[in-house]
Amino acid sequence: MTGQSTPISNHYIALVKLELNDDSLGFVENLALDLIADLDLKIVKKISHVFHPKGITLAFILSESHLLIHTWPELGIMHLDLVTCSYRSENEFENSLKAIFSEHNVKSMEIKSVNFD
Amino acid sequence: MTGQSTPISNHYIALVKLELNDDSLGFVENLALDLIADLDLKIVKKISHVFHPKGITLAFILSESHLLIHTWPELGIMHLDLVTCSYRSENEFENSLKAIFSEHNVKSMEIKSVNFD
Repeated sequence: MTGQSTPISNHYIALVKLELNDDSLGFVENLALDLIADLDLKIVKKISHVFHPKGITLAFILSESHLLIHTWPELGIMHLDLVTCSYRSENEFENSLKAIFSEHNVKSMEIKSVNFD
Repeated sequence: MTGQSTPISNHYIALVKLELNDDSLGFVENLALDLIADLDLKIVKKISHVFHPKGITLAFILSESHLLIHTWPELGIMHLDLVTCSYRSENEFENSLKAIFSEHNVKSMEIKSVNFD
């Protein structure tokens, strides 16, 4: 919580371009769990869907809001949408992303932040 | 799909301030279903959580990406996060929001858009 007029402390969106050789649900979920652990967030519930012929959507309700991940393996794109009502800096988010993708062939990583004030 | 380097066509976030007299899951879900129908989106899966003592999180995986809603009834705030990979204009999103909230006491409605290009 901050002094803002909204309880949302952070809303970060990342577009990661990488070689998505493994687009299994297990692979994407492991990345998500590493991100959630690295940012010290808590999972309340999760849901996922494997699209045909390709692509995964993974949604976590967190005690601090939510994390949504979509993959487009045919385009080598992963989209991460993190909303929290407890503060994490953009730098923390970026460093956590770099950590979870450190062993993967990331071509680019772009982060946007949404703020209501 | 657009000519952009990302398959995300739209990412809209709305912060709605209103008198949330009814914060039941049914109330919030009906608003979400009306919004999804009004924007001609398709539900794949959904998940929800009722927080203690107050607050609801409702997540829909859509065939076109996702809709996430959080409520903070003690603050009279509803936060909607819609990502789609099929195009809806910001005007359509705003008009749909106005339609679903037309019978409710909305104090303010602010919309942000996220674009990667």
